[in-house]
Amino acid sequence: MGEGSLVPETRVLAVASHVVSGYVGNKIAVFSLQSLGCDVAALNTVQFSNHTGYRQWTGSRVSAQEITDLYQGLKQSYLDDFDMMLSGYVPGAPALEAVGQIAQELKRKAESKPGSFFWVLDPVMGDNGNLYVAPDVVPVYKSLLHHADLVLPNQFEAELLSDVPITDMASIGRALQVMHERYGIPHIVITSVSLPHPDHPVSSLSVVGSSMTTAGRRARAFKIVFPAIDCYFSGTGDMFAALMVVRMREAVHNNNNQGSRDGEGQGGGLMGRASWLSDDDVDTLDLPLARAAEKVLASMHEMLAKTAERMEEVVEKARAEAGVERGVVVDGEGAGAEAEKKRMHLLKSKAAELRLVRHLDSLRFPKVEFRATRL
Amino acid sequence: MGEGSLVPETRVLAVASHVVSGYVGNKIAVFSLQSLGCDVAALNTVQFSNHTGYRQWTGSRVSAQEITDLYQGLKQSYLDDFDMMLSGYVPGAPALEAVGQIAQELKRKAESKPGSFFWVLDPVMGDNGNLYVAPDVVPVYKSLLHHADLVLPNQFEAELLSDVPITDMASIGRALQVMHERYGIPHIVITSVSLPHPDHPVSSLSVVGSSMTTAGRRARAFKIVFPAIDCYFSGTGDMFAALMVVRMREAVHNNNNQGSRDGEGQGGGLMGRASWLSDDDVDTLDLPLARAAEKVLASMHEMLAKTAERMEEVVEKARAEAGVERGVVVDGEGAGAEAEKKRMHLLKSKAAELRLVRHLDSLRFPKVEFRATRL
Repeated sequence: MGEGSLVPETRVLAVASHVVSGYVGNKIAVFSLQSLGCDVAALNTVQFSNHTGYRQWTGSRVSAQEITDLYQGLKQSYLDDFDMMLSGYVPGAPALEAVGQIAQELKRKAESKPGSFFWVLDPVMGDNGNLYVAPDVVPVYKSLLHHADLVLPNQFEAELLSDVPITDMASIGRALQVMHERYGIPHIVITSVSLPHPDHPVSSLSVVGSSMTTAGRRARAFKIVFPAIDCYFSGTGDMFAALMVVRMREAVHNNNNQGSRDGEGQGGGLMGRASWLSDDDVDTLDLPLARAAEKVLASMHEMLAKTAERMEEVVEKARAEAGVERGVVVDGEGAGAEAEKKRMHLLKSKAAELRLVRHLDSLRFPKVEFRATRL
Repeated sequence: MGEGSLVPETRVLAVASHVVSGYVGNKIAVFSLQSLGCDVAALNTVQFSNHTGYRQWTGSRVSAQEITDLYQGLKQSYLDDFDMMLSGYVPGAPALEAVGQIAQELKRKAESKPGSFFWVLDPVMGDNGNLYVAPDVVPVYKSLLHHADLVLPNQFEAELLSDVPITDMASIGRALQVMHERYGIPHIVITSVSLPHPDHPVSSLSVVGSSMTTAGRRARAFKIVFPAIDCYFSGTGDMFAALMVVRMREAVHNNNNQGSRDGEGQGGGLMGRASWLSDDDVDTLDLPLARAAEKVLASMHEMLAKTAERMEEVVEKARAEAGVERGVVVDGEGAGAEAEKKRMHLLKSKAAELRLVRHLDSLRFPKVEFRATRL
């Protein structure tokens, strides 16, 4: 039963933040990857008590030198045999440069075997119009993009990288085209697109993806529309990225094994091709990227819905326990009311932590409901 | 299917080492706990590139102050609501003292609700007659033992803690009795016992466990004999400890819900009792500890067998790849032979990494083959 559902053996280097409690960064990515059968090397760029959405945390960052040292440690013991790399939040420009060096070295090492290494880059810079990294991080990301195989910006990050203001589906298409052309990024998925559009009911979101053609770097763009859940969750981008790693490899592997047109005359099929780029005449809706994104969204949607279902109950329980144990004043004004507001923010943040460990089946066996359509 | 098999909701604080690549310490414990449905707060005491069995590694330790700070970070955001704690390798006496403070604080906080917090302490000090921590760590462990609910020494650590030289099953029984009496440890499992005994075929190992009686702290000792696998694996103690956390809670929960004799007149059953200690007249072979250990050993045995099966293939593959890519001399003498010996040690270490992510079913649905018998 379970074992049959595993993806092909895949060794992944995952570089992102670690939080002791909760599920963001590597804490959510590593479990997502492992539960689908990946052997994950988890290089943690920070160790924080909890994610920054709580507005208070403790812990420390790992320096650029330490990141480089850890990678050297892997290398000297033949532990750098990665099939894929996933990079997420990296604190500061020097640390990001160190991570970029690692990715470039792994790319170079794989040059003689096209398709044997694939880098998924989540350019974590900001969201909803706000930059939450230092400004000098942006040019470092721009300099690294042309080494990445799949880039996963959110809407705001896509604007930053393409310099195209995204206001409608047409401009999102232009942003994709610019990113393919300017940086040569083979595959792009823009996550959490929220735009007015006839296809978009008010409470819908979409992801928009594209795999470029080899000739002319033309975008082949699709979108997947799905119902929004009215709640702010953290870690969704990190979970999305981790699942894309696995599902992309799985989709390319399946395509490969179907002996499709892609495989013929290329000696080894799609998996043996640089950046796993499908033939130029492959239709947008037949792209492995579209298959992968559909499956990932299905997992995401199930997980968010199940977490939201339990949120209220969890908040109530936490409220009761904290109130009793700590004797916190529940009503009041001034300092008391402020403290209560803070406490409720903390309890809600905890209740919104994604319940991955209780819903393994949603990670492993998602039911695809939302299909890709042409942009 | 999957979701029905989950243990009751359990929030665990896991304190141990983190390795980027491979499976020891928190890297193996966190996944084991999560895959069985636990919400795990993972406080990493080191970040190393790989485990020390490779004989070379990079990375750094987390200081005692940082450990304390991370816990304070959890506390200030109401994230210290743990049902259980698992502590494994902690580097040095000051850091171990910091971890001990956390455990004692959590115990104190739970005093008014017996059974609401349970500490599983793996006193990582050494193995096979060798101490691999600083000597000043030993007295710190001894000072902490009387706060722990379940302690999991290996044979060597049991000797250190009890001052009883273990040479046969009779002396192991005495060591258990001493640890119950001297430190008041409610539950003990001694892992990887390797002793001459008529019940022990040459290639067998056993674990020996005991839950004490409340009156007189008498040992109720059992053993489980299982076939040894001729290979040196790392991380087995950490995996054993993590699975014991889950399976102990599950066994106590099941016992509780059966409305057994234990529950009657105690208001809330076994889970509502300090250290989940069964009534004094409960037979050794009916102890939840025995049920838990049987299930854990079943998972362990399946995982080790499956890892061993693939080891040779993995070594060959790694040997071929490394040889081709790095141009390493395979035959030779002097420095060349030394280098080759080192390389083979590294490749074998990698191949012996436990393949948890490929055998989730062995973690979740183990088939119990080896049963507890009276010591």
